[in-house]
Amino acid sequence: MRKLSIILLVGTALAGCQSPEHILEQQPEPVPAVALSTEVQKIQDIALNGTHAYDITESVTTEIGQRLAGSPEEAAARDWAVKKFTELGLSNVRIETFDVPGWIRGEETAEIITPYPQSLHITALGGSSATPDAGIESEIAYFPTFEDLEAAPAGGLEGKIVFISGLMKKAHDGAGYGPANKKRQLGATEASKRGAAAVVIRSVGTDSHRFPHTGQMRYRDNVKPIPIGALSAPDADQLERILKRGETVRLKLTLTPKDVGPLPSGNVIGDWIGSEKPDEIILIGGHLDSWDLGTGAVDDGAGVGITAGTIQVLKEAGLQPKRTIRLVAFGAEEIGLLGAFAYAEQNKESLKNHVLASESDFGAGKVYALRTSVQGAARDELQKIQKSLEHLGVEFEAGTTSGGPDIIPLHQNGVPAIRLQQDGIDYFDLHHTPDDTFDKIDKDEIAQNVAAWATMVWMASEAEVDYREKPEENVGE
Amino acid sequence: MRKLSIILLVGTALAGCQSPEHILEQQPEPVPAVALSTEVQKIQDIALNGTHAYDITESVTTEIGQRLAGSPEEAAARDWAVKKFTELGLSNVRIETFDVPGWIRGEETAEIITPYPQSLHITALGGSSATPDAGIESEIAYFPTFEDLEAAPAGGLEGKIVFISGLMKKAHDGAGYGPANKKRQLGATEASKRGAAAVVIRSVGTDSHRFPHTGQMRYRDNVKPIPIGALSAPDADQLERILKRGETVRLKLTLTPKDVGPLPSGNVIGDWIGSEKPDEIILIGGHLDSWDLGTGAVDDGAGVGITAGTIQVLKEAGLQPKRTIRLVAFGAEEIGLLGAFAYAEQNKESLKNHVLASESDFGAGKVYALRTSVQGAARDELQKIQKSLEHLGVEFEAGTTSGGPDIIPLHQNGVPAIRLQQDGIDYFDLHHTPDDTFDKIDKDEIAQNVAAWATMVWMASEAEVDYREKPEENVGE
Repeated sequence: MRKLSIILLVGTALAGCQSPEHILEQQPEPVPAVALSTEVQKIQDIALNGTHAYDITESVTTEIGQRLAGSPEEAAARDWAVKKFTELGLSNVRIETFDVPGWIRGEETAEIITPYPQSLHITALGGSSATPDAGIESEIAYFPTFEDLEAAPAGGLEGKIVFISGLMKKAHDGAGYGPANKKRQLGATEASKRGAAAVVIRSVGTDSHRFPHTGQMRYRDNVKPIPIGALSAPDADQLERILKRGETVRLKLTLTPKDVGPLPSGNVIGDWIGSEKPDEIILIGGHLDSWDLGTGAVDDGAGVGITAGTIQVLKEAGLQPKRTIRLVAFGAEEIGLLGAFAYAEQNKESLKNHVLASESDFGAGKVYALRTSVQGAARDELQKIQKSLEHLGVEFEAGTTSGGPDIIPLHQNGVPAIRLQQDGIDYFDLHHTPDDTFDKIDKDEIAQNVAAWATMVWMASEAEVDYREKPEENVGE
Repeated sequence: MRKLSIILLVGTALAGCQSPEHILEQQPEPVPAVALSTEVQKIQDIALNGTHAYDITESVTTEIGQRLAGSPEEAAARDWAVKKFTELGLSNVRIETFDVPGWIRGEETAEIITPYPQSLHITALGGSSATPDAGIESEIAYFPTFEDLEAAPAGGLEGKIVFISGLMKKAHDGAGYGPANKKRQLGATEASKRGAAAVVIRSVGTDSHRFPHTGQMRYRDNVKPIPIGALSAPDADQLERILKRGETVRLKLTLTPKDVGPLPSGNVIGDWIGSEKPDEIILIGGHLDSWDLGTGAVDDGAGVGITAGTIQVLKEAGLQPKRTIRLVAFGAEEIGLLGAFAYAEQNKESLKNHVLASESDFGAGKVYALRTSVQGAARDELQKIQKSLEHLGVEFEAGTTSGGPDIIPLHQNGVPAIRLQQDGIDYFDLHHTPDDTFDKIDKDEIAQNVAAWATMVWMASEAEVDYREKPEENVGE
């Protein structure tokens, strides 16, 4: 809004009595840092003026809704993807199946019993064990941060419900997630080691809305599995305000999720065979599964939309890449990158043909940087892509990348990675909550993503380089 | 943030290499439009530098939580208010009880059965009848707005679930509420007249979060009472996207609220007896009850906090008003101003002594205007109050006021009204949702409210005028 006001002011000064619409039209197009090739110009025009990713994301979130790993809805999403990939004109559209450990949500309630009886909003973390059906009631042992729990002596929490708070820092690159996520990953293990009966954490997220954030956890070190749930930020605030009054707080917690044994999942794959180097595969994709609370729009309907939209745009531009472009909609990302590991295993014979891989899985905010693990002459070539994206606000970032969560197993097996970094300042407001719904997708921002992706894929597929010439040693980002 | 940036820029230009903190300190205090009296200066200093309303709102939302009319929690809130009013040093602190029709929420779910099976977030409107325990399943009849339903022919909706959409306009003064609220108030009646089995509406609200907004409804014209619930905005969007694909949509709706007969409610009242005109009562207050989904912070813990905080500030300033200041925490506002009507009835003998009345019940956003129903010389006197508030951003608004929802029955009986209008641009993001929680209260904004209220109450209590001299004829706002 501020930008608009300034444009209007400047425009008004220059344009006298012209209408506001006219003034806005006068806003100069951003000038590319280099002359764009005819193809890239066309790609960007089509992408920026289109609704490719927006429409595909709308389709999967509206027609399927939530897509929990192993669920019938995830299976319906695979059928949806097969249809969509086929409509895109991809070849050999297929589902590579694998099994995942089934886990389904049950009842979930939390009530303060004393001193101030009231209900709190809670959700079980994925993989959590259950309380008895009637719930458990116990005194709360409060730890302001996960580090405080780690520093607590062995024992001393027998039978208690541990509450771990701690804020997550908001950042454009999501840098606050790792530190904040320790309590989700390790909270139950550390509390169980000390004798606790259950755990509630402040949700890992950056919003102040009454949505708990779920997410996968697992038990380590052979501890007794104790139930763990996440409170919404306002509920965690409430509990802390009560605890800070110095009184003993008793909580009743009922979480009845169930392990339901192996369930089917799968990766949906389609190829656009390259005209000159069909054996060199550039893999792009997002993940098809979501958590069960929202409809998986920013996580990761958008990633599927952006990468499928990339294919659409290149086809609309009448282009035919030299290398093979492979589109993958991964299954079961949320419960431990299970689709990614299955893909790496099921395609291990051909991994040597994967010359570049990238996933979009950080919402639909604007792309602001390009990173790659590629070194040597090929890195210089990839840096040229950034020059063709600079006018869209994309910088080149030093360092490396693992290409996105589902690319990690490929990258670990030597596949070069590239990534378009998205602005995720609001991503963790929505991440893993019921509020991750389609209305949160911005039409212009997601179109900018497609422009960047289609440019990247096109230029990478055409470049006369060997991406695997000098594999980068330092894996991880 | 923008304002801050500009201040920083200007500050930087003036201040050379001084620290940002220092630059911000240089921002000049706003200059009052008139010389403030010593008392008013003191009142505003104490209020603006204090956390009076903030702390009281924290207390009621934290220690009680939700306070549904007729519930044990509303009763606990009355005890809380008696204690708080007594601590404030008020006299004759009392509860005036009355009965309300009890209504409690049951199960509430909505599922699209075809064409795209998925769950929607719904809540029953207050006063709604129930579906059978097993729910009802039917085809949806879609009306983009309430007016479309009104225009529909008699009959034709037999057995269907009517879905009424329609957006609410965001406005600082809440002007969008009335038009948007028709579907909540009259939707069930109009649908029932046409044979429908149930109604779902798009929530009356201005947010895009997955919280349904509840609120009271009632059946009119002796129609058959059919169940009615509100979908969150993202769920209403979702349903509309599906409907716009042109397919028949079947919904399963389960809403099992219950009428539970008469329950006790009450108004909590305390007086600060005037030193010179003890029989002239200036009544201020908020309402103690809330909807059951949130903890009633903006609606209306804040109003109780602001008006109780007003008393605190005047006492801290060492002042003694000439007129009697009466503080009322009304019960059962949300279910039809029942506390307000009970107050007017139970105090009808003394209504003639009520010289001015005002309620705070629009959140905790900054006060931007003063309105009054008072006419003649006394109106000029009240306008002077606005001059003493102008530097806090308060204008004088022409026209009249009914003084706030719970003042309506008093105003209808001739009690002059005054109101401090609050900026409610975000109020309907939270109104009647689970997200109406204490973290939404801004410490500075609520302190500005108290400064404005304490100034108003003090000046109004001291003015040598007869507020009832020229009663205003045109009731309502």
